[in-house]
Amino acid sequence: MRATILHAPGDIRVEEVPDAAIEQPTDAVVRVVAGCICGSDLWPYRGLNAATPPRTIGHECIGVVEEVGSAVRSVRPGDFVIVPFCHSDNTCPHCRAGVQSGCSNLGFTVSGQAEYARVTQADGTLVALVGVPDEHLVPSLLTLSDVMPTGWHASVAARVKPGDTAVVVGDGAVGLCGVLSAVLQGAEQVVALSRHAPRQEVARAFGATHVVAARGEEAVAAVRELTGGLGADAVLECVGTSESMDTAIDCARPGATVGFVGVPHGVEIDAGRLFRRNVALAGGMAPVRAYLPQLLDLVLDGRIDPGQVFDSTIDLADVAEGYRAMDERRAIKVLVRP
Amino acid sequence: MRATILHAPGDIRVEEVPDAAIEQPTDAVVRVVAGCICGSDLWPYRGLNAATPPRTIGHECIGVVEEVGSAVRSVRPGDFVIVPFCHSDNTCPHCRAGVQSGCSNLGFTVSGQAEYARVTQADGTLVALVGVPDEHLVPSLLTLSDVMPTGWHASVAARVKPGDTAVVVGDGAVGLCGVLSAVLQGAEQVVALSRHAPRQEVARAFGATHVVAARGEEAVAAVRELTGGLGADAVLECVGTSESMDTAIDCARPGATVGFVGVPHGVEIDAGRLFRRNVALAGGMAPVRAYLPQLLDLVLDGRIDPGQVFDSTIDLADVAEGYRAMDERRAIKVLVRP
Repeated sequence: MRATILHAPGDIRVEEVPDAAIEQPTDAVVRVVAGCICGSDLWPYRGLNAATPPRTIGHECIGVVEEVGSAVRSVRPGDFVIVPFCHSDNTCPHCRAGVQSGCSNLGFTVSGQAEYARVTQADGTLVALVGVPDEHLVPSLLTLSDVMPTGWHASVAARVKPGDTAVVVGDGAVGLCGVLSAVLQGAEQVVALSRHAPRQEVARAFGATHVVAARGEEAVAAVRELTGGLGADAVLECVGTSESMDTAIDCARPGATVGFVGVPHGVEIDAGRLFRRNVALAGGMAPVRAYLPQLLDLVLDGRIDPGQVFDSTIDLADVAEGYRAMDERRAIKVLVRP
Repeated sequence: MRATILHAPGDIRVEEVPDAAIEQPTDAVVRVVAGCICGSDLWPYRGLNAATPPRTIGHECIGVVEEVGSAVRSVRPGDFVIVPFCHSDNTCPHCRAGVQSGCSNLGFTVSGQAEYARVTQADGTLVALVGVPDEHLVPSLLTLSDVMPTGWHASVAARVKPGDTAVVVGDGAVGLCGVLSAVLQGAEQVVALSRHAPRQEVARAFGATHVVAARGEEAVAAVRELTGGLGADAVLECVGTSESMDTAIDCARPGATVGFVGVPHGVEIDAGRLFRRNVALAGGMAPVRAYLPQLLDLVLDGRIDPGQVFDSTIDLADVAEGYRAMDERRAIKVLVRP
């Protein structure tokens, strides 16, 4: 099959590799209808993660089941499925507690930017649609494999409640989905921090009531002004750097929670800083499977359209250009068609 | 008045100082009936906080109102009162949100180990009893000024719910009150980490179902074994060191919250560690005033007896010996009678 391979920082190529295949009776193989590039793919692309040998990349996709292992019961070849980026058996105690991202049999999609992807724990992971979705739904359905449930997780972790003022740090696809999630969870004011016009536009389309085109202390000051000096009731941290975490913590009012879903890169937190203002920190890898049924209904009912985070669609052959566009912030999020 | 003065690390003396006095119309002066030594007083006593000039010390006390400022309406001279260690107006937005420890007019008791203590924001801070309490209630009432609401806050922050397995890290008075709080909040199994027989005894009296006489990795392993490998549903961190925080985080199951109330001393947390297992961190200085009415009822009804944390009572004149006894862990908590 043709798959995207990260050879080294900045060196992304589409190459022929062995087909994704059933390795365990609980596996499925999905023919990818649409994949995409994630902000977190930019970390290794930029050389900011530890070096690895050349490997397939891409953890987000939707598609059609091609083949299933002998133990798989809930999906069959031909089913159109959403593929959560983290695979879970959905039966272990962690899954039953709603933390599928801590599953005892955790797995990941590793060739989402390719023709086929192997899915472990297919019964516990995949969610099948009835029939084949309309083409116009593809972008929104694709967000359900990662960025929309991840933004949702930030909002759940931040304990957004009706009437709240929520601040979203990060204007990538996850941050924008965080804006949408906070609105859906009842926040009355949603403040998006963004200095990029196209992203500001999506944030507003998703319901942001305020856009603050600033960072760091300047952004914190703006949030304080917007909240009568109090700080925000809930903060969604959707980046994963020390700077973004600092901003998030400083925007929070005493007693508030920072819901953080940006994969942390070298983020060290002084516990005393949280202690002095009773600011809590909650988050991590989103339990996509837990949120999927609810979010899928919202998409299918046309109540939300998170697919607006995609502002570019490319063929798999052009994936390297997709990485460049996201790296240079010329694109918010790139959809990849195999 | 006679008051305890910390001159320098290890140098505690009782000396004559100017009487606590009304400085603002919202102040009250309380004649201390009972004060005590807190684990957090040991930090400056041991020289582990930044050096300060000689100063009065002691933030926990109960007593009788001696005098009130012209604006005070809710208490009057002669009232027997509980004095929360943190003073709050109970009307600002932070107080109304239940975070009295983040009050816009925050103050602290600074001469609790003395004959008199000044209380700022008396109307919002003090809770008066009807009449004078029985002498046998004094120790439990005294815990309401700090350690019992602080243990309660750890349990609230850790989101203990009925049926949970809760682990309490720290066997000081706050940790022991944390055990009692987790039991009251419905935890089915409460695991106290303690290697000291007298503290283990109080933990069991407060409802601990398990005592683990270990620290660090050994304690974590014991908790894993007790929870079928899963980890605890909730963890209360009641110490404030890097070691205790590490233990607390490692004891938590994915999705659990570490409620932390030990004043952090040099505790840096790697956000990636929390992220990978969706372990949350919540806590800080307890909003004593928020919890006080409920906890006072429990004490007055005889349903709880947190005063068992006191295993030593001394005269104010002997306060230096009280510090030595706590420093050397010969006493759990020392009650001081002016």
